[in-house]
Amino acid sequence: MHVYDAVIEFIDDTIERSIDSLKELCRIPTVAAKGQGLEETAELVSKMLQEAGLKTQIHETSGAPVVTAILDVGAKRTLMFYDHYDVQPAEPLDLWDSEPFEPEIRDGRLYGRGVADNKGDTVSRIWLIKAFTETKTDLLVNIKFVVEGEEEIGSPHLPEFTKKNAEFLKADGGIWEFGGAGIDGVQEAWLGLKGVFFVELEVERLNKDVHSSTACILPSAAYRLVWALASLKDENNKILIDGFYDDAKTLSVVELEAIEKIDMHETMWRTELGIDEYLMGLSGDALKEAYYNAPTCNICGLTSGYQGKGSMTVLPAKASVKIDFRLVEDMNPNDIHRKLRLHLDRHGFTDVKITYSEGYPAAKTPVDHPFVKIVAKANQRVFGNLRIQVTSPGSGPLYLFKEHVPMVSIGCGDSKSSVHSPNESIILENYRKSIHRLVYVIDEMGHW
Amino acid sequence: MHVYDAVIEFIDDTIERSIDSLKELCRIPTVAAKGQGLEETAELVSKMLQEAGLKTQIHETSGAPVVTAILDVGAKRTLMFYDHYDVQPAEPLDLWDSEPFEPEIRDGRLYGRGVADNKGDTVSRIWLIKAFTETKTDLLVNIKFVVEGEEEIGSPHLPEFTKKNAEFLKADGGIWEFGGAGIDGVQEAWLGLKGVFFVELEVERLNKDVHSSTACILPSAAYRLVWALASLKDENNKILIDGFYDDAKTLSVVELEAIEKIDMHETMWRTELGIDEYLMGLSGDALKEAYYNAPTCNICGLTSGYQGKGSMTVLPAKASVKIDFRLVEDMNPNDIHRKLRLHLDRHGFTDVKITYSEGYPAAKTPVDHPFVKIVAKANQRVFGNLRIQVTSPGSGPLYLFKEHVPMVSIGCGDSKSSVHSPNESIILENYRKSIHRLVYVIDEMGHW
Repeated sequence: MHVYDAVIEFIDDTIERSIDSLKELCRIPTVAAKGQGLEETAELVSKMLQEAGLKTQIHETSGAPVVTAILDVGAKRTLMFYDHYDVQPAEPLDLWDSEPFEPEIRDGRLYGRGVADNKGDTVSRIWLIKAFTETKTDLLVNIKFVVEGEEEIGSPHLPEFTKKNAEFLKADGGIWEFGGAGIDGVQEAWLGLKGVFFVELEVERLNKDVHSSTACILPSAAYRLVWALASLKDENNKILIDGFYDDAKTLSVVELEAIEKIDMHETMWRTELGIDEYLMGLSGDALKEAYYNAPTCNICGLTSGYQGKGSMTVLPAKASVKIDFRLVEDMNPNDIHRKLRLHLDRHGFTDVKITYSEGYPAAKTPVDHPFVKIVAKANQRVFGNLRIQVTSPGSGPLYLFKEHVPMVSIGCGDSKSSVHSPNESIILENYRKSIHRLVYVIDEMGHW
Repeated sequence: MHVYDAVIEFIDDTIERSIDSLKELCRIPTVAAKGQGLEETAELVSKMLQEAGLKTQIHETSGAPVVTAILDVGAKRTLMFYDHYDVQPAEPLDLWDSEPFEPEIRDGRLYGRGVADNKGDTVSRIWLIKAFTETKTDLLVNIKFVVEGEEEIGSPHLPEFTKKNAEFLKADGGIWEFGGAGIDGVQEAWLGLKGVFFVELEVERLNKDVHSSTACILPSAAYRLVWALASLKDENNKILIDGFYDDAKTLSVVELEAIEKIDMHETMWRTELGIDEYLMGLSGDALKEAYYNAPTCNICGLTSGYQGKGSMTVLPAKASVKIDFRLVEDMNPNDIHRKLRLHLDRHGFTDVKITYSEGYPAAKTPVDHPFVKIVAKANQRVFGNLRIQVTSPGSGPLYLFKEHVPMVSIGCGDSKSSVHSPNESIILENYRKSIHRLVYVIDEMGHW
């Protein structure tokens, strides 16, 4: 009998209790964008970590608290988990098939906001340690958790925490918050994250909405915004901000080699999303290059005037847009902020106000780091092959951990998880197996 | 004692009852854009007309019913009133200082959706006839009312009614639905209305909202819409649809002479709206020409993705915009519809779907028509000078009446009435005096 058989057995025997814990956590609508339920969720996560046998601490910041936990068994190696207890807003609510904050199981999937991103992984990792504690099985590595509450709004106060607690961040390997099965069912590990720069642009040209008949002589905030947006990016998807691409680092030879092996499953994805072609007809290498290394300028939300049913003839006083720019390595959000302001001013859009919402740079763990191999070996024991992705097109505050611990992102999600979208969900069987995989990460790491 | 003194006395003595009737009518949220309360309001208007001594009829159409009323006293001349019992949506609700559908008096003004546009005028005109009936005073003209319920959505079913009831539309003069005091307090009469073409443009590029990280390889509905909108109108406010201006009739010499006399009160209006300058820095003659005769392409509402508090990193599947084009004489909405589709297709925007919401052409009553003088003389007896405006920059289905009756638009509103906006209101003293003015319109018309 393998030394960890009891742990695996415990996980399987208690899987329903574990899912109940996850449901409990998901019932709190911890929407960081709205400042909802942050303290309450931090407390619950801390309680769950304590019940799993860890020593916890709730660190106050200028924003949401950061929960840390430690279980020091005097081992040579230390494994860290980075998770977050906040979630994206659930809007648009009318597209959910069940209540976003009342998790529901249908056909082997658990539906609810946060089940994939990333309350599911958070609970799976806590339950992992609980399994060792409850079965009194020796852990071969020390364990650390960092669970923050503002990942979905760009982790604005995590630098406060990491600056004060640099020593705590030291570990030999870390598991980042997300991951899972690709569209072909193959598990994926993500080694990097793009940076992000999220802004709101606002135009206000009148002191109140007026009858649209006067549009013949009065300025339109909405059209000013449209023209400003059109000036930022052309129809060929080229971002027109002066110097925008200047610092963007190209992919290294090692990274290009790693990418070459990847099958993007272009047709499968197109079918899944109901599209005839990718942006600008991208395919093959160009599609890969864009996926792994293209910065973006994307409209997340656009609003002005009357949006109800039917017609209303109004000239709206205001218009605004939420934009996220994804940044690749060496691009700096503060620099892009400055260049955006300059661009708008040079094009006559001094009336467009910028509100900087969040921003941080990209970061990557090297493809050839030994910890990457450890994760791949552990994955092999549960799921088979692992697709190593040099970076995710998504973002996260990996840059704050980069100097202290090599991070690999794996998790319980899959290609139908609808992260940041309505009907977010996970496959419960993958949830269970992803805990098994972590048992073997500990095993492999203990023998490193 | 003047023959109409008893009528004037009745109006003054019963003014509070009249305002109570107006409040009652405004408590029904008759929002045509949402199909709310239409039948109920038609019934109430019909009842009020009957109580004033008129014979009424409710005409069913494919949309909201049209209420007509007649009081035939066998006179030589017939005076018609055109009104509408529907109102604009009350959104944005958070900008109202009192409930939009619970009228409230503050500082001599009555606030509520529809008090100015045009339930106030409707009730004032019914009360006018009631004053004659109750005081048993001889009317010197026959009276007709046409009160429709879809003016605010472009009167889509009024042509059905006017085609079937052409004979009823014949009259020697008519009072159109709106009007009142200008920014300088001088009363205004409007002789024309621009046409309108209201559409919704919609782009859908994915079958669901997705995580915005994939914006590097997936098409953006919101940006497609932005580019389409930017292609329609340039930053100099020139509408770029091929042939858009082709049929636009220029102002006649008589109209230009009438406009020359007008003081636009440029500074007063700028202060009122909190703007430094008009659209494109317009002033003087150019400002007047734009006001009276510029077609427009105006964004009434713009919507895509997340519009809540804070940030949400999403690539929205859909984006849409509501646009109203104001059309001047000889421009045809169906022709503009065709040209808009052609324009979008030629610019590669075959993915932009057009939904035609409403549309009709412009129309004007000639400046030198004798009925215009009658209205001016009646106005003189109550308010003093009258500013004759060759056309309003706004729209209304005047074209349906044009061949049957010369219409002049006067009413109880004023420059702070916030028509189509939050805190719509009227000055109660102007409401009372506008009924007096109609007594003298009847008097002057009886001696025509």
